[in-house]
Amino acid sequence: MRRYASTVVVLLAAAGVLFSAFPAATASDLSVAPNGVTIPKGYRNWQVVAPSQRDDKDEIRVILGNGIAMKAYRAKQLPFPDGAILAKLAWKRVKSAEFDNTFVPGEPQRIEFVVKDAKKYAGTGGWGFGRFVDGKPADEKQHATCWPCHEANVKGHDWVFTRYAR
Amino acid sequence: MRRYASTVVVLLAAAGVLFSAFPAATASDLSVAPNGVTIPKGYRNWQVVAPSQRDDKDEIRVILGNGIAMKAYRAKQLPFPDGAILAKLAWKRVKSAEFDNTFVPGEPQRIEFVVKDAKKYAGTGGWGFGRFVDGKPADEKQHATCWPCHEANVKGHDWVFTRYAR
Repeated sequence: MRRYASTVVVLLAAAGVLFSAFPAATASDLSVAPNGVTIPKGYRNWQVVAPSQRDDKDEIRVILGNGIAMKAYRAKQLPFPDGAILAKLAWKRVKSAEFDNTFVPGEPQRIEFVVKDAKKYAGTGGWGFGRFVDGKPADEKQHATCWPCHEANVKGHDWVFTRYAR
Repeated sequence: MRRYASTVVVLLAAAGVLFSAFPAATASDLSVAPNGVTIPKGYRNWQVVAPSQRDDKDEIRVILGNGIAMKAYRAKQLPFPDGAILAKLAWKRVKSAEFDNTFVPGEPQRIEFVVKDAKKYAGTGGWGFGRFVDGKPADEKQHATCWPCHEANVKGHDWVFTRYAR
């Protein structure tokens, strides 16, 4: 009996290891984009690459970078090394009630990440793209629009739009 | 002779201590604003409070906070505690050449800081204001415009315009 119990424990532990090593990215898993990109822990505390603003969507944004990305930006290192991650936080642009002609972030619209892994994402410039709205990943159709746009417009900057704002 | 030399060293050391304890904020000192505010070391690496944008000046900005300020923002602590510093980095807003309807930072316009010290800056809501263009502080006349505007518009938020963008 003791031996049986031990075997069960070992089997359960092995199953646990397997499960965490290969997390399932299914439609029911709300934290993983179709290509495996997840929301990196602590991204809101990352340093700023630059703010940006978009008229047609009436949004204001800020682009942040993890440590690897910021180091590469400051060293003007291209292509970005594996492990570099950029985050784009987008809010509706709203008029400040306290200061004329000034616009500030309103409702959050989405957060997006690009994750550099030259081998894993070889088919999309070495970048994995993840878009999340209310913490949930967008569908495959939306994700399919990311790479063609980066590919068409920013070949000379390792497919990354945002430059470091000095 | 040896004794004389020692005395000179001691006097020079004492002068050095005095000098660093009371830095002169004169017109020739290019790193100190009229009220004593300086450019904090490493401010570019601080976390983001929020981006903003201003139509009349055609600028895009980002407001950063030091550790004390960010902790207060996240805890919704008002008034901000002594030691809190916010930085506003402003760039000319320029049209992206790579993406329609999108605006990005152009030339840096100025950096500004508000430093909380309730006692030292008691006359201006506990905040010291510093504006720097090309690393040089603006003059007293310009600095005199900071507090009246904050006083008139953001009494309910410890005289700080920027809210934390979630």
